[in-house]
Amino acid sequence: MKDKISIVGAGLVGSLLAVILKQKGFEVQIFEKRTDPRKSKALEGRSINLALSQRGIKPLKLAGVYETIEPYLIPMNGRMMHSKDGDLTYQPYGKEGQFINSVSRAQLNQLLIESAEAAGVQVFFDHKCKDVDFKKNFIVFENGSKVESDLIIGTDGAFSAIRKKLQITDRFNFSQHYIEHGYKELCIEPKDGNFRLEPNYLHIWPRGNFMLIALPNNDKTFTCTLFFPFEGSPSFDSLNSIEAVNSFFKEYFNDALELIPDLADQFFNNPTSTLVTTKCEPWNNNRSILLGDAAHAIVPFYGQGMNSGFEDVRLFIEKAEEMDWDWDKVLPSYSSMRKKDADAISELALHNFIEMRDHVGDPSFLKRKKLEAQIQEKFPADWIPLYSMVTFSDMPYSEALRLGKIQKKIMDDVLKEDNPESKIDQAISQFNALKKVD
Amino acid sequence: MKDKISIVGAGLVGSLLAVILKQKGFEVQIFEKRTDPRKSKALEGRSINLALSQRGIKPLKLAGVYETIEPYLIPMNGRMMHSKDGDLTYQPYGKEGQFINSVSRAQLNQLLIESAEAAGVQVFFDHKCKDVDFKKNFIVFENGSKVESDLIIGTDGAFSAIRKKLQITDRFNFSQHYIEHGYKELCIEPKDGNFRLEPNYLHIWPRGNFMLIALPNNDKTFTCTLFFPFEGSPSFDSLNSIEAVNSFFKEYFNDALELIPDLADQFFNNPTSTLVTTKCEPWNNNRSILLGDAAHAIVPFYGQGMNSGFEDVRLFIEKAEEMDWDWDKVLPSYSSMRKKDADAISELALHNFIEMRDHVGDPSFLKRKKLEAQIQEKFPADWIPLYSMVTFSDMPYSEALRLGKIQKKIMDDVLKEDNPESKIDQAISQFNALKKVD
Repeated sequence: MKDKISIVGAGLVGSLLAVILKQKGFEVQIFEKRTDPRKSKALEGRSINLALSQRGIKPLKLAGVYETIEPYLIPMNGRMMHSKDGDLTYQPYGKEGQFINSVSRAQLNQLLIESAEAAGVQVFFDHKCKDVDFKKNFIVFENGSKVESDLIIGTDGAFSAIRKKLQITDRFNFSQHYIEHGYKELCIEPKDGNFRLEPNYLHIWPRGNFMLIALPNNDKTFTCTLFFPFEGSPSFDSLNSIEAVNSFFKEYFNDALELIPDLADQFFNNPTSTLVTTKCEPWNNNRSILLGDAAHAIVPFYGQGMNSGFEDVRLFIEKAEEMDWDWDKVLPSYSSMRKKDADAISELALHNFIEMRDHVGDPSFLKRKKLEAQIQEKFPADWIPLYSMVTFSDMPYSEALRLGKIQKKIMDDVLKEDNPESKIDQAISQFNALKKVD
Repeated sequence: MKDKISIVGAGLVGSLLAVILKQKGFEVQIFEKRTDPRKSKALEGRSINLALSQRGIKPLKLAGVYETIEPYLIPMNGRMMHSKDGDLTYQPYGKEGQFINSVSRAQLNQLLIESAEAAGVQVFFDHKCKDVDFKKNFIVFENGSKVESDLIIGTDGAFSAIRKKLQITDRFNFSQHYIEHGYKELCIEPKDGNFRLEPNYLHIWPRGNFMLIALPNNDKTFTCTLFFPFEGSPSFDSLNSIEAVNSFFKEYFNDALELIPDLADQFFNNPTSTLVTTKCEPWNNNRSILLGDAAHAIVPFYGQGMNSGFEDVRLFIEKAEEMDWDWDKVLPSYSSMRKKDADAISELALHNFIEMRDHVGDPSFLKRKKLEAQIQEKFPADWIPLYSMVTFSDMPYSEALRLGKIQKKIMDDVLKEDNPESKIDQAISQFNALKKVD
């Protein structure tokens, strides 16, 4: 097992994968276009935070790095919804003891890069990929160096350079689709050294066509993210003055406004970012393959971008072990197994935006969630809510999507009844029958 | 009207557009990455031929070039289906006097480039686009030259360099999707100076998952095109020996095999090509815009690739005249008007492959076509078959698609009746009602 493996992209997925492949005995190198974040501070600060859950935790444990990371996690037990009047409604994510974890992308990335280096992986920063020869299996970098490998893995994110090279090979299907919304991050500073909102929740201000969310950070700040249309009214376009921003927040997010005294400064100084879904096929070409966002970038509304990328790593390694590291078999086999699941989480993530921004505040949505909790409590082995299948299990995403669609239809019917609670047994038999038939 | 317009791509759409814009008084230049085909012979010979119909003819007349082109056209009145046994079935494309026209891409392109030059357009060959600055409105070519313009138009085809530059601008949606089939061209030579098949038809050998077609050329040859899966059995993969090719043709296309004595030579010497659909949005960015395949490449099965591109030219010019050549208004207005029609013909073209390869030989399909002809004859003002709406009219493609879907549903219902002919009046009232409601 002396194969030489080149990983392009030292992000979360690439660095985790490097740790495991090195442990398996391979010669592993990572090439990253950016400068070492420990030297440049580029990745530090309050960049976007992520929600680590089951699918991400399992591969971290497989790599033996979870214990290093655990101290940096902040559990979030459920959603805390903020109404326009500042009323709070709590909705747990799952059963007692089930939670997701807020973690800083920058911190997690640094821990993983250090774990890779500690394991003996060579990490080359300032290496921007210029070209790939998929037939002869080498990469050329913009600094002139050329690297031959037995295996090339592209983990270089939504705008992957490796994927751009695949895109001009024959019969490569590709799509990039931006949603009509962008996002802007805003920071809630601590007060007297304390969090200014309850820390163990994901806070949501659902407002129909847009929303604000807030996740806790280790330094007692919250990172708020406004998901907002680029055009229309209101939109990033229409909020074009300090007055417009302040009066908009006063109307829609008044309790948050009070926690961000320098709102307008942040609003006009912080960038407005886009949200893209990318799909492509095939992920593999000869001895090269894409993993994580490079293969399937998704919108962040199910909190599954990083988790699905880490799960890619676990499934890739499992498939490789099963096939005795015969890459010519592993690459197509892994890709054809995983593609439908990447498509499924892509669809789920787009749909969850509508749920988060538009439905979570609804009385009818809360009624639905409450009934579903009752069903789950009565038949815990039969009925697992969709959110839990995605977040707290590692069943294939495509299976979660399929079951979720059946559940939705049954719930729609039951909720039309005068006394939905009396129909729970009937709903379960129907569900168990349909589960198999499909 | 002294605006300087740069057109990138001297293909069919670019050269026709140049003729018209020059006639309108603009300073027009075309930049083409290839060498002048008149010098290189690269475009000559028996390259793919096209089917020119109403949507393509109208803009050629607008440009005053139709009379130059007409002598090169060969009318095709309908489909001539070849069964496995060599039996022929004829199906007219439309009413008496309606036909489509076989024309060589290379010949037509040369005539249009010459028309552009005759009109005073400068055509620069060997100019490969390297970069575009959409803000400052200039193009840089690989030979080092830099051209500033008031308007940049990308008519550089399915793999457009201009579109590749747009693809890395923010919020540009893009997809490229290859179908599972490729194609290979084969030539039927004349015998004793005559066509070896009846010339005024588009010949089809429909065989379920694949098909062969043949279109007549001016030199009395036919260009045959085999549309065939890349993988599976049979496929381009599986036909890997002279014996395999000959026995496959003997089984499926025996009457064609007799007309191509050097079949295996041609089969292994001619390239196998892919079939791609591309979509993107927005087509315009500041003072740049995409037209034709660069904006919307489609599969060839409705014979509308060139026709839709020429129609783009007509609609773009009409919109520009309507808006008094105010490009800042024309570009977004044309794009938002035309996008839904490009999407519609893209869908229709993919669907027509299934019809051509799988249904046209069916007795039930022929029964449907016959009934539809009866409806049309009885109510010519009310019911125009989908093929005719697409091919012999210039109603928006999206409207043709919408009406075609209503027609299909009505036909499905009527054909379930014992005596479908007796239901024609009923079908028409239903159609006229649904047409409006939608």
